[in-house]
Amino acid sequence: MDTEQKTVDVSFENLLRIFTVPEGPDSTLTKIEEELSRNLNQFLREHIVAEEKPLKEIEKDFSNPTIPEQPSFVSDHTQHLLDTLVSHSVHTSAPSFIGHMTSALPYFLMPLSKIMIALNQNLVKIETSKAFTPLERQVLGMLHRLVYQQNDTFYTQWMHSAEHSLGAFCSGGTIANITALWVARNNALKAQGDFQGVEKEGLFKAMKHYGYNGMAVLVSKRGHYSLKKAADVLGLGQDELIAIDTDDANRLCPSALAKQLKQLQQQNIKVIAVIGVAGTTETGNIDPLDEIAELCQQYQCHFHVDAAWGGATLMSNRYRTLLKGIERADSVTIDAHKQLYIPMGAGMVLFKNPDSMRSVEHHAQYILRKGSKDLGSHTLEGSRSGMAMLVYAAMNIISRPGYELLINQSIEKAQYFAKLITHQPDFELISAPELCLLTYRYVPEKTRKALKVASGKPLAELNDKLNELTQFIQKTQRETGRSFVSRTQLNPQHLEQRDTIVFRVVLANPLTQNEILQAVLEEQREIAAKAPNLNKQLMSLTNELLKK
Amino acid sequence: MDTEQKTVDVSFENLLRIFTVPEGPDSTLTKIEEELSRNLNQFLREHIVAEEKPLKEIEKDFSNPTIPEQPSFVSDHTQHLLDTLVSHSVHTSAPSFIGHMTSALPYFLMPLSKIMIALNQNLVKIETSKAFTPLERQVLGMLHRLVYQQNDTFYTQWMHSAEHSLGAFCSGGTIANITALWVARNNALKAQGDFQGVEKEGLFKAMKHYGYNGMAVLVSKRGHYSLKKAADVLGLGQDELIAIDTDDANRLCPSALAKQLKQLQQQNIKVIAVIGVAGTTETGNIDPLDEIAELCQQYQCHFHVDAAWGGATLMSNRYRTLLKGIERADSVTIDAHKQLYIPMGAGMVLFKNPDSMRSVEHHAQYILRKGSKDLGSHTLEGSRSGMAMLVYAAMNIISRPGYELLINQSIEKAQYFAKLITHQPDFELISAPELCLLTYRYVPEKTRKALKVASGKPLAELNDKLNELTQFIQKTQRETGRSFVSRTQLNPQHLEQRDTIVFRVVLANPLTQNEILQAVLEEQREIAAKAPNLNKQLMSLTNELLKK
Repeated sequence: MDTEQKTVDVSFENLLRIFTVPEGPDSTLTKIEEELSRNLNQFLREHIVAEEKPLKEIEKDFSNPTIPEQPSFVSDHTQHLLDTLVSHSVHTSAPSFIGHMTSALPYFLMPLSKIMIALNQNLVKIETSKAFTPLERQVLGMLHRLVYQQNDTFYTQWMHSAEHSLGAFCSGGTIANITALWVARNNALKAQGDFQGVEKEGLFKAMKHYGYNGMAVLVSKRGHYSLKKAADVLGLGQDELIAIDTDDANRLCPSALAKQLKQLQQQNIKVIAVIGVAGTTETGNIDPLDEIAELCQQYQCHFHVDAAWGGATLMSNRYRTLLKGIERADSVTIDAHKQLYIPMGAGMVLFKNPDSMRSVEHHAQYILRKGSKDLGSHTLEGSRSGMAMLVYAAMNIISRPGYELLINQSIEKAQYFAKLITHQPDFELISAPELCLLTYRYVPEKTRKALKVASGKPLAELNDKLNELTQFIQKTQRETGRSFVSRTQLNPQHLEQRDTIVFRVVLANPLTQNEILQAVLEEQREIAAKAPNLNKQLMSLTNELLKK
Repeated sequence: MDTEQKTVDVSFENLLRIFTVPEGPDSTLTKIEEELSRNLNQFLREHIVAEEKPLKEIEKDFSNPTIPEQPSFVSDHTQHLLDTLVSHSVHTSAPSFIGHMTSALPYFLMPLSKIMIALNQNLVKIETSKAFTPLERQVLGMLHRLVYQQNDTFYTQWMHSAEHSLGAFCSGGTIANITALWVARNNALKAQGDFQGVEKEGLFKAMKHYGYNGMAVLVSKRGHYSLKKAADVLGLGQDELIAIDTDDANRLCPSALAKQLKQLQQQNIKVIAVIGVAGTTETGNIDPLDEIAELCQQYQCHFHVDAAWGGATLMSNRYRTLLKGIERADSVTIDAHKQLYIPMGAGMVLFKNPDSMRSVEHHAQYILRKGSKDLGSHTLEGSRSGMAMLVYAAMNIISRPGYELLINQSIEKAQYFAKLITHQPDFELISAPELCLLTYRYVPEKTRKALKVASGKPLAELNDKLNELTQFIQKTQRETGRSFVSRTQLNPQHLEQRDTIVFRVVLANPLTQNEILQAVLEEQREIAAKAPNLNKQLMSLTNELLKK
């Protein structure tokens, strides 16, 4: 598979070459890699087509379900990847891509990732990972201390103990949340008398043994969708995930939680866990963790905090108090691929008690033998890559104060943007930023006045029309490819809790400057003007309301 | 964070640099990366310390649970990683590392991985992955066709359909198996009348609604340990994973399965799934898939095939018949990071019926909206990386005939090694290779004669002593670092099913030559001679037996 041959021969000799002979310095692949190493943003700007190609069109390039019978040259195929895949991928690290939690990466992580992949360790067991095992345990220890702030003796005793585990490194926050609830479920329905525990005998027998009428997991209405999935997978059922009301700032209402807990107790329904959200996906708000902790203590149930996104805030001495109470959680989910700026695929779940994960421990003959320090005996996943190395390197190279600066900067940028929006006559801030996430929408100046006097059906009609406009703006802006904000649906109290579509902005990219935020609003205003029919309808509803 | 500064300043300007300024051409990191790109094997040989350092010693380098308060220079930290981590990692791509399923990687995957990581796509939704979404669907289509061989119309209709899914790309085989059983469980306990399905109402209510006395998942004694974990997570309980007897070639006995199915039916226990293993982890054997399919059809239960390791054999026209019957499975697990030579973290589960995954479908407001083609609506995981790109590239560059050569070569190398072992007077082949995996042990020539006449207690004593010797050899060989075979415990019929520790060899690395296999035996023979006490005890038992 050489660039100089004209056809590729399927011979064992040629195959051996792809395992032993690197791409030459002049090969397409090497050149691309160098280009990317020299200036990633330029590379992406040059290779990603700005204007969106319809998915239907892109699909044509990926429509053949047959594994090729003829090999390709590496260079030819690399060119093909550039033309069909890279060109129509998403420029997630662009400073104007402020719609999702995926952001720019520090440069040093690119070559380090290559080293990690070349080493191809499997962290399921020591025999295929050796030093990577203590490294991952240390990374879990670092994050554990960030959350729980135990003393040195604690970590000396438990961090490398074969029979204990401070947490699990996972592919992402969903697996982390499932792991936390798996542990919570198994500890809530553990062995007792003749009953061998839910892990052995299953949920049906567990419920019969304990005599409960049902189970429940409680989380605010703004909990992440993965929790529903977790409730399904774990056999609880989505209905047993109970949504607790939130206040106007999208935070769980402790009084509503208390009421629900009491009611469930009276109904003999076992609460497996209460989940506090530290950084809701849609609005970035943080539940009152201390008050939830109090209630969990009172009702003796597992307290899990889903801090997949907001957990990194603990790096900031200035803002970590926003998460006060997290140290009382039995388990915490943190995603390093969000605000810790690690590539996709680095979730973690941490457990306050190093004994917690015993309820999900498993062993086998050929690996994970009892007494071994194999990480795989406490993880939901089996084979896993050495991603922990990237977290470790970033912790050392950026350091806590470095992360603090990044976090503070993001939060303060969101505060700036919120103020900017508030100062516009034709934009409405829907949720103010607590972390670096906010939501807003475009509302023509006159319509804003109408909104203030509207209620009931006229408000509903006006709001529906604004929803159409928001959707149109978001979609057009995305397709134009200059900038990207996402959208979601909220139910704000000042809009009588009506379904309201909003722009959602996450300001985690350190490269996003204030001018870009100004330009985003300008562009949205321009796009809004390009929907004459919608605007006409909107104005007619507005005038109707203002006439009254 | 520049190599020329002497102390690192935590300033926002310095932090911005790590996001915008690549490592210079003379930096330690760039040099290492180049060294690795030029000759990976040499790099690993030079940097990985051959002789094993005790884990306790390695742990000392990874004992600090505090996130540094002071940043490090990239170069300094890279050197630190080389000295503490890389040097004590496992050389998984060494031709003499034949103990596990982790092997060498084709060179072109290293730079491609870097491109994948730099693009940092999130495949949970189209908004953060665009062309990667149809690409992943195509990869799933290719693997689906490899297994099920449906016609073009089938793939045109379903491969890119928003409401359907041919499978799920996962972090590994464990998540793939859990996904398959999750789908099987939800389809077995689906909505009916007033009952809204197990996904909504949970297992307890599902069991009461259907009136079953219990549930069961059936797999041979040699099934992967992850299946126990799956049974636990899904709320079935490990006890409901029933182990079916195997024959002397470690293959599930269809008659034992038939008996069990009948019995469970009589007991009103619902069989959620029967699992066929295509490539057992310990011995590489393949269950009689056709016969299992027959029984599953008869008893109307989900047939899953765990082909995480052996599935790649389907690439070989010469050997794919070994897996005959797999095309009748309702779902199949295949790991691309095993015999498809992709880096760690590329599992897949495929479903024959594009409708199967509906029972685990989920939606949310901000993503995975109904009708969208977001991959996340059918995966257990949430955020996921663009690993599918590497599978896609490998399929194109290596092609099916290329993979066939690799697979054939591995199987035939195992056949060669089996023959080599059989020809030694002092080695005993325990399981002959069906794929490229075999097990054996060292038995002194005289002891082999004694083994043939021994039975009962004397056989047990002799076998225990041999177990000690096998363990000693395997451990010493690993610590010496010249070569690595793994070990497991089997219960061979010709040894009265006694617990027997064996060497386990996986010959998937195309760089492993016959001479290396000869050297492995030679080294094991030499190590055996270095255990005088064990040998003395063994000889005394041997002489005792031969005297009789």
